[in-house]
Amino acid sequence: MGKKQVVLIALGGNALIQKGQKGTAEEQFENLKSTMKQIARLSKKYTVVITHGNGPQVGNLLLQQESCHEVPKMPLEIIGAMTQGQIGYMIESSLDTALMELDNNGSQLFVTLITYVVVDENDPAFQQPTKPIGPFYAEERAANLPYHMVKTDKGYRRVVASPKPIAIVEHREIKKLIEMDFIIICTGGGGIPVIRKERKFRGVEAVIDKDLASSVLAQEINADIFVVASDVEGAAIHWGKPDQTLLRKVKLGDLGRYVHEGHFPAGSMGPKIEAVIQFFQNTGNRAVICHLEDIEKAIDGNAGTEIVQ
Amino acid sequence: MGKKQVVLIALGGNALIQKGQKGTAEEQFENLKSTMKQIARLSKKYTVVITHGNGPQVGNLLLQQESCHEVPKMPLEIIGAMTQGQIGYMIESSLDTALMELDNNGSQLFVTLITYVVVDENDPAFQQPTKPIGPFYAEERAANLPYHMVKTDKGYRRVVASPKPIAIVEHREIKKLIEMDFIIICTGGGGIPVIRKERKFRGVEAVIDKDLASSVLAQEINADIFVVASDVEGAAIHWGKPDQTLLRKVKLGDLGRYVHEGHFPAGSMGPKIEAVIQFFQNTGNRAVICHLEDIEKAIDGNAGTEIVQ
Repeated sequence: MGKKQVVLIALGGNALIQKGQKGTAEEQFENLKSTMKQIARLSKKYTVVITHGNGPQVGNLLLQQESCHEVPKMPLEIIGAMTQGQIGYMIESSLDTALMELDNNGSQLFVTLITYVVVDENDPAFQQPTKPIGPFYAEERAANLPYHMVKTDKGYRRVVASPKPIAIVEHREIKKLIEMDFIIICTGGGGIPVIRKERKFRGVEAVIDKDLASSVLAQEINADIFVVASDVEGAAIHWGKPDQTLLRKVKLGDLGRYVHEGHFPAGSMGPKIEAVIQFFQNTGNRAVICHLEDIEKAIDGNAGTEIVQ
Repeated sequence: MGKKQVVLIALGGNALIQKGQKGTAEEQFENLKSTMKQIARLSKKYTVVITHGNGPQVGNLLLQQESCHEVPKMPLEIIGAMTQGQIGYMIESSLDTALMELDNNGSQLFVTLITYVVVDENDPAFQQPTKPIGPFYAEERAANLPYHMVKTDKGYRRVVASPKPIAIVEHREIKKLIEMDFIIICTGGGGIPVIRKERKFRGVEAVIDKDLASSVLAQEINADIFVVASDVEGAAIHWGKPDQTLLRKVKLGDLGRYVHEGHFPAGSMGPKIEAVIQFFQNTGNRAVICHLEDIEKAIDGNAGTEIVQ
């Protein structure tokens, strides 16, 4: 039997909660359906690893924490762990249903792993937190909270560090599972950030970009194809202008130039581009940014933005 | 190399939150330390599977949900999934630290799995919910909530069904991981209850007793030793009376008689006894109920209540 190729698919937050939705359980399960049908079909040809975002789910849990004074507040690392359980379960059970609808043989090995990711405690991000999370606060309330805050149009908002992911703690385990053709859901929300100090792991109040963490994992497992799927068709230059142009096959050198020219905004397309560039540079394997509805087409080479040499 | 024996250890809720504690993250990490030191040492001799409770953590999340009207409430199955992430991470990172303190070689394969458990939609428990969960409510509030309620000394409380666990969905995956000597944390809080209908999984508003679910898993993996660890030394007859007697080695027949005589209360020791009896009857392997501080001693045969033929 020829060994299956390994595909790592990083799902954007809108795979679960779409713009304008509050994120009920029903909405999230409904939104997952079409993506999971694609992944069920793909799992017949490829060994599939799935990662996912968790921004809105973290925001909801933080808001609930703030509203309740009887229950101890959990630090951000544990909120992240909770969302890995929550979203992992929603994806796994939706994909189980899609697999059963496809052939009902129930033979596919399949797990959702809690994953943590090592970051460097000297990462400059800790000196200058920039990632906004959770609810908006009025000025007086913000002044009394023990957080770094930024002022926005809608009020004050907590900002936390977003350090670079260095290594996925469970990468050896994930590799073993790939060898046995497990479907693996892992590294949710970019992973739970931890630092290693002497002989201890310690969680830290930070969030890790999920596309960058997915790229690190894709490199560690030497994925054959790395797919970053969200609610846009791909990367475009001159975004939002009359000469906006979707990039389909783009040379690494050209993409690097577009980055320097500032075509990709820091909060959204920027990290996706950085993620695929790092992966492509370090492995030479296929990396593509595409729409959630186009995952299969993109893997077939017929959609999305793909880097070429 | 001789194959290691497999030990399944079911940790009671007090491994994380002790009586009188509110359950801050610091408390939970601190409480885990001594248990994890034991498990780190045990993992050198045995392949270890860890399950755990989630009652207080579910209660805290439900209370936070009730306090916040801006965020959609999640159904109980997803609350359960969140606690599997939360507690799984706390146990895994604490055990990682204990393993590093022990020998620091970092070679142990180790995962935390999101786990769901099949229940029967015709289980009579769904007709008569009995398991109290979450906060206490005043009478007027209780009357306006869409839940089954019971009246208690401290107010009204929601009750949900506690159906019997039938099968651990991920048992094949767990067996594969055991073959490779992974440490596995799974089936947290008794697992996320699901029913299988036609070609779909569906989560249900219920909770599964964690000792009974752990027993099902222990049988499915044919564990060599099944340990149920909590804050009592073992099972006792005449509990709380002058002639209270701790059972050390107890014959299956005698234990069955004590059950019929009503020695073990339904909410606490009852399910533990039922769990070890089912395991022992179906496998003939060692089953012991012990204190969290005595796990190693109990495995060595020197503490706890153990069934014998």
